[in-house]
Amino acid sequence: MTTANTGNNLDPWYGHYADRTAGLSASEVRALFAVASRPEVVSLAGGMPYVSALPPELVSGALERVMRDHGPEALQYGSGQGTPAIREQILEVMALEGIRASVDDVVVTTGSQQALDLVTKLFIDKGDVILAESPSYVGAIGVFRSYQADVVHVATDNDGMIPESLRETIVHTRAAGKTIKLLYLIPNFHNPAGVTLSWARRLEIIEIAKANNILILEDNPYGLLYFDGPPPQAMRSVDTDGIIYLGTFSKTFAPGLRVGWAVAPHAIREKLILANESAVLSPSAFTQNVITSYFEASDWRAQIDTFRGIYRERKEALVSSLSEHLPDLTWTNPDGGFYVWLTLPPQLDSKAMLPRAVKELVAYTPGTAFFANGDGRHNIRLSFCYPTPDSIRLGIRRLTKVINGEIELLDTFANTGQLEIVKSSDRVTSPPPNIN
Amino acid sequence: MTTANTGNNLDPWYGHYADRTAGLSASEVRALFAVASRPEVVSLAGGMPYVSALPPELVSGALERVMRDHGPEALQYGSGQGTPAIREQILEVMALEGIRASVDDVVVTTGSQQALDLVTKLFIDKGDVILAESPSYVGAIGVFRSYQADVVHVATDNDGMIPESLRETIVHTRAAGKTIKLLYLIPNFHNPAGVTLSWARRLEIIEIAKANNILILEDNPYGLLYFDGPPPQAMRSVDTDGIIYLGTFSKTFAPGLRVGWAVAPHAIREKLILANESAVLSPSAFTQNVITSYFEASDWRAQIDTFRGIYRERKEALVSSLSEHLPDLTWTNPDGGFYVWLTLPPQLDSKAMLPRAVKELVAYTPGTAFFANGDGRHNIRLSFCYPTPDSIRLGIRRLTKVINGEIELLDTFANTGQLEIVKSSDRVTSPPPNIN
Repeated sequence: MTTANTGNNLDPWYGHYADRTAGLSASEVRALFAVASRPEVVSLAGGMPYVSALPPELVSGALERVMRDHGPEALQYGSGQGTPAIREQILEVMALEGIRASVDDVVVTTGSQQALDLVTKLFIDKGDVILAESPSYVGAIGVFRSYQADVVHVATDNDGMIPESLRETIVHTRAAGKTIKLLYLIPNFHNPAGVTLSWARRLEIIEIAKANNILILEDNPYGLLYFDGPPPQAMRSVDTDGIIYLGTFSKTFAPGLRVGWAVAPHAIREKLILANESAVLSPSAFTQNVITSYFEASDWRAQIDTFRGIYRERKEALVSSLSEHLPDLTWTNPDGGFYVWLTLPPQLDSKAMLPRAVKELVAYTPGTAFFANGDGRHNIRLSFCYPTPDSIRLGIRRLTKVINGEIELLDTFANTGQLEIVKSSDRVTSPPPNIN
Repeated sequence: MTTANTGNNLDPWYGHYADRTAGLSASEVRALFAVASRPEVVSLAGGMPYVSALPPELVSGALERVMRDHGPEALQYGSGQGTPAIREQILEVMALEGIRASVDDVVVTTGSQQALDLVTKLFIDKGDVILAESPSYVGAIGVFRSYQADVVHVATDNDGMIPESLRETIVHTRAAGKTIKLLYLIPNFHNPAGVTLSWARRLEIIEIAKANNILILEDNPYGLLYFDGPPPQAMRSVDTDGIIYLGTFSKTFAPGLRVGWAVAPHAIREKLILANESAVLSPSAFTQNVITSYFEASDWRAQIDTFRGIYRERKEALVSSLSEHLPDLTWTNPDGGFYVWLTLPPQLDSKAMLPRAVKELVAYTPGTAFFANGDGRHNIRLSFCYPTPDSIRLGIRRLTKVINGEIELLDTFANTGQLEIVKSSDRVTSPPPNIN
C-alpha cells in the first residue's frame, strides 16, 4: 500500500508509486544547469573528466583490436560478474593503492554509481542509517535516499572524517534506536570537500567500524589522480572482511563507457553478482573489452600521469585565483582529484546566489547538494577538472564580482536592519559545516 | 531492522542484509549451465542472439565514425534520458510497430532489463502484486522478486493471456486484499511460451486494465523478429496513457552494447529519468553513439531481414525435428522470436531430468524457471536462436533419447508401484500450465 506519494493530480498514476519514490527528487538546480551549459558560461559545477586529453588514436586502436580479436564475444551478453580479463586488469590497477585481491572478489558494474546502487539495495531497509562524511557525494546521497536510508553526517575536517565524531555519532544514532548499516567514505580527494583521510585516521576508523560491527563502503574514484605524491593506501589494503571497495575507469580512462567495480567480502560479492544480473543481466561486454584492449596495449600509467599534470595545473589556477581575488574566504586545497570546497561569509546563501552567478556567466554547485540535512548553504563546490586554466581564472573573477556584490547588498540591508531576521534563522537552521 | 535474511553463519554480515535480499537467489540450474557451456554440449537453453550474423565491417564502420565525429561526447558522461539522436532513432524503430511518440517520451536504459528494474523500483512496495502471463520471462520474475513483489500468473493459451482469466484474477487478487500495481506482458513471440497475443485480446486487455486502473508494462524485445508476417501492432499504438512500453537493441543489433529503452506517460517518464540517474548517472554515451552511427549509415532493416531468415530456418529445424522424433508431445509453434515451449508427459520432471540431458550433451531450460509459484515442472523452454540448424537437429535427437529413457525408466518403476507417491504429489503441487 502506498502511504507516501510524489507527483500530482495531473498524473493519473499518482497513488500507484512505491513509498520509496518519495526520496526521488530532481535537483533543485537542474533547470539552472541547463542554462549553465551554454558555451559562454564558465562552469565550475560539473564533474566531467577532461576526456579530450585521451589520445583518440589509443581509443581507436583499442576498438579495432576488439573487433578483430573479440567481436562476437564483445557484442554478446556476458557474465554478470564481468569478464575475467577486465577483472585481472582491475587487480593491477588496485595494486597501485596497496590492494591485494583475487579476480573472484571483483564484480564489474555499469560505472561505480551502479555499484553504489546495488550495495544500497542489498543492505538498506527503510529507515536504516548510513553514516557519511559532512559533506558527502551528491550521487551517493541520492541513491541512499532512493532506498529510504537515513543519511547521518559525521563531522569532517582537513584530514577527513573525525574519528571521535564518528564514535559519538554511532552512540547517539544507536541511542535513538536506529540501525546503522553502512559507513560511506571517500578517503581520497573527497567529492566535494577536496580533503584526504589521513593514514592514522584510516586505521582508527577501521577499528571503530570493526568494534561496532559496521560495514565500510570505501568509494575511491580519484585515488590515482594525485598531484605531487600518492595518498595513503586504500583502507581495503588493511582490511578485507569489513570493507566493500568501489573503483571506476571513469577518471583514469573515460566515463562514457560506464565501467566501474566493487570488491567485496565473499558472501556479499555473491549477492552483488545476483543483484547485478537482476538489474542489467550483465555489464556491457563491449565496453569491458574496449577497456581491456586499451589497458593491454597502451601505457596507461603514462596516460594517468598526463591527466595528473592537467588537473594539477587547473587546481593551481583555481587556488591561486581564489588567493588573489577572495583572500578573506577559506577553501580546501586538495592534493588530487577534481574539487575545491569554498566557504562563503556566513551571511551569503550559495543556492540563493546561484542565479546571479549564472547571470554573470559562471556556474558552481551549491553546498546544500552535498548534505542530506539542509546544511551547506554557506558553501560552494568548485570543480577544476573540465575548464582550462584561463577559463578557471575568468570564472573566479566573475564569481568574485558576484560574491562581493552580494556582500555589499546584504551589508546595505543589514545596516537598515531589514535582513536581521533572515540572517538569524539562517544561522539556526544551517550551521556552517566543519570544513575549513 | 532485518526480519528476513539470506546467507549463513559463515557470512559475518549475515543479519545486516535488507529484507528484500530474501528474494535474491541464484538459479538452481546455474551450476549445471556452467557445465552446459562446454562446446560439445548442444545448448537449447540460452537466449543469446546470433550476433555472428552481424557483418563486422558494419560495426567497425560505426566505431570509426563515432571516434571521428563524436569522440569527446561518446567518451563523456551523458544525459540521464539518453542522447537525443538515439531517441530519434528509437522513434523510427517503434514506428514499424505502429507506435507514435515524441523524443521526450523515450528514456534510454542499460538494456531493457534495467528498464524493468527501474519501473519495478518506482512502483512496487513489498507485497504489491504484478500480474504476468503463465509462464513469464525469468529475468522479469527475478527483478519483481528483488523488490518483494508478489507475482500472480494469469492463464495463457496459444493466443496469449486469456482476458477472462485476467478478469477473474483481478477479482480474486483484490478480494484477498492485495494491491495490483502492474500487468506485465510480452505480447509478441513470448519468452518462454512462443505465443503471440491476438489483436482482439490486446484491445480487450487494454480495456480491462483501464477499467481496473492497472498500469500495463508491455515488454517487446522480439516484435521485429517475425518469420512470415508482422505480429499485431504494439499495445502502445492504441493507448498512450496506461502503458509503459519497453524495447531493446539487443535483438536487432547486439546485446553486448546494453542499450534498451522505455516509453512512458509523462509523469512516470520524469521519475524514470531520475531513477536512471540515481542508478547509473547516465547510460553509456559510447554505446548509444555506436548504435546511432550504425542505424544512420547501414541498411538496418535489411539486416533485421537477415536475422529473421536465420531464426526462421532454425525454428523450422527445431519444430520439424520435434515432429519427427517426439510426435506424441505438444509444443508451441512460434511466428517469430527465439523460443518453443515443450510440454512433457505428466510423469516427467524437467528439472530432475536436466542433469541426464547434460550428460547426453544437450541443455535446455526447465519450465519452473518461468513461474513464481513452482509450476512448469512438465515444461521445457527450447531456444533456437543460437545453434545452427544441424546442431538443433542433433540436440533434439539427444533430447529424444533422454525423454524416451526417462519414460521407460519411470514406466518400469510405475509397474512396480514404487513411484506412485512421487507421481501423485507431483500432480497436486504442479499442474501443467495452460500452454498447449
